[in-house]
Amino acid sequence: MPIKPKGEFSLIYQHIAPHAGQRSDVLLGIGDDAAILTPAPQHRLVVASDMLIADRHFFAQQDAYDVGWKSLAVNLSDLAAMGAKPQWALLSLALTKDHAKPAWLERFMQGWSDLARQYDVELVGGDTTRGNQLTISVTVIGTVGQAQSALRRSGAVVGDDIWLSGTIGDAGLALQQMRQGVRVEDTLATRLHRPVPRVALGQALLPLATAAMDVSDGLLADLQHLMTASDVGAQLYSRDLPFTTAVKEWAEVDGWYLPLTSGDDYELLFTASSSCRDQMQQLSALLGLKLTRVGRVLSADQGLSVWDGQQLLPLPAYLGFDHFSGNL
Amino acid sequence: MPIKPKGEFSLIYQHIAPHAGQRSDVLLGIGDDAAILTPAPQHRLVVASDMLIADRHFFAQQDAYDVGWKSLAVNLSDLAAMGAKPQWALLSLALTKDHAKPAWLERFMQGWSDLARQYDVELVGGDTTRGNQLTISVTVIGTVGQAQSALRRSGAVVGDDIWLSGTIGDAGLALQQMRQGVRVEDTLATRLHRPVPRVALGQALLPLATAAMDVSDGLLADLQHLMTASDVGAQLYSRDLPFTTAVKEWAEVDGWYLPLTSGDDYELLFTASSSCRDQMQQLSALLGLKLTRVGRVLSADQGLSVWDGQQLLPLPAYLGFDHFSGNL
Repeated sequence: MPIKPKGEFSLIYQHIAPHAGQRSDVLLGIGDDAAILTPAPQHRLVVASDMLIADRHFFAQQDAYDVGWKSLAVNLSDLAAMGAKPQWALLSLALTKDHAKPAWLERFMQGWSDLARQYDVELVGGDTTRGNQLTISVTVIGTVGQAQSALRRSGAVVGDDIWLSGTIGDAGLALQQMRQGVRVEDTLATRLHRPVPRVALGQALLPLATAAMDVSDGLLADLQHLMTASDVGAQLYSRDLPFTTAVKEWAEVDGWYLPLTSGDDYELLFTASSSCRDQMQQLSALLGLKLTRVGRVLSADQGLSVWDGQQLLPLPAYLGFDHFSGNL
Repeated sequence: MPIKPKGEFSLIYQHIAPHAGQRSDVLLGIGDDAAILTPAPQHRLVVASDMLIADRHFFAQQDAYDVGWKSLAVNLSDLAAMGAKPQWALLSLALTKDHAKPAWLERFMQGWSDLARQYDVELVGGDTTRGNQLTISVTVIGTVGQAQSALRRSGAVVGDDIWLSGTIGDAGLALQQMRQGVRVEDTLATRLHRPVPRVALGQALLPLATAAMDVSDGLLADLQHLMTASDVGAQLYSRDLPFTTAVKEWAEVDGWYLPLTSGDDYELLFTASSSCRDQMQQLSALLGLKLTRVGRVLSADQGLSVWDGQQLLPLPAYLGFDHFSGNL
């Protein structure tokens, strides 16, 4: 009897596997019980998983291209925050009836692949199943050389500068405009739906930064995570925060803290000795990416504060996104 | 201000992170943007992901211990099928209101950890979020020495014996009894809810088996996958299939093919040269695990057949579980 893949297997073989890639260090890719990889000698593995759920992390009706892109992007952002070089990825999908369709899957994989190709990230495995809610679970594996120390959240030292890449608040403003039914500016929408993981920056920061993480839950919340891990305090300079014009207006009208709590930025937040300022400027020019000094590291007992040049601003009660706040 | 983890972070830090483990090759575990691992030199990585969804892969009301155990077990079963030694795991959870509770999480992690400890598998990362449907996504990373070749589905050779570990159909019968509202025998329930991945067998088969995979979708469906990958045909001997007494009765009364299509067995299906029969017997004794010769590999044009000792049995239209059959 002829043997043809069908159902789950046809989904995988027709729409997902062709996007896998062709790296020579992948001895066996999609299609067996597991993939076999050959990591380069003298390297450490850096691994992260992020799960995205429809109408929680993205809109179920969003262009599938954006959903595919973002699913990989938020995971690569975690590797970027460690200074790791992305290598391989696994993708698991729980698909509703609306999403288990060739057109949706093709578009999803197109968005995924367009980003994956930029970093030569090969899709080596995963799973597909049916679900009541579109759920995307991604695991990424990257590497750092053993001679280098990956960036952690825990290395910030009192007196360090606090830095931020790019601009923050754009995705948060886009989200607010969508909720208000206002037409969203294209540049803001792109920041929300197709974030760019700061992979090159992360690797360049390996010899420079004392601590790093990506800003996904909101600057204030994420800075607190870094402070906790490093056992330090921090002061932010609100006037120096990197905002686009639209976000600046938003902050002035609706509240200064909104771009600091809205999340979904996927910029890198990092600390470095003040002796590195020139190098940061050079790095910024090299990468064509704005790097802004936004504060300084204080001792733990000084906690978190925001200085607007004249006074300390009262911190909002809500510091950033938390999927379970109030549930326990 | 004092900094306390709360919400998502409290869930992770209080109920998940304490189950992580303490392997010396984990330079950085749960709590940063990613984990940092040091794989042993001269080893290949073997990686797999499986996603489990409530009321699809397990019952939402099932003891959380079993759900935790099974989530890891089905993933370790994939590594077992490759002959890999399990090393690290990532766990992502989409939790409903009913499941995002300390009692449920503690019990879930207890089941996970009791299995993880058996193989020294360290939990190094993952994600937690809210979802409308309890969804568990696990990635496991194992290793094989570079001198050894991991077991693939594609190596079966015409003339090889086909082997099966343990017994099949037990989980399927348990599931049927649950659906019928009949009291499920404890031994059958255990097979369904706490499958034992054949990790030691997989590693022992590295120098012996020509092809291997785990039986999760049902013997007939999975054998077809192996046949496709190896470009061979196969004949099963129905009289030799390893059934428990209860399953034998089920097959005789309700249909011979039911234990071959019910899935959830997590036994290893593998092929080996007929010159290995003595070694298989020794291995079976060594592991205390039944290994049964259940068929032979034929050429691809001979397809799949089942021989009952007197005649060929007609194959059922439904060969095994497929989450998307008929949807495309």
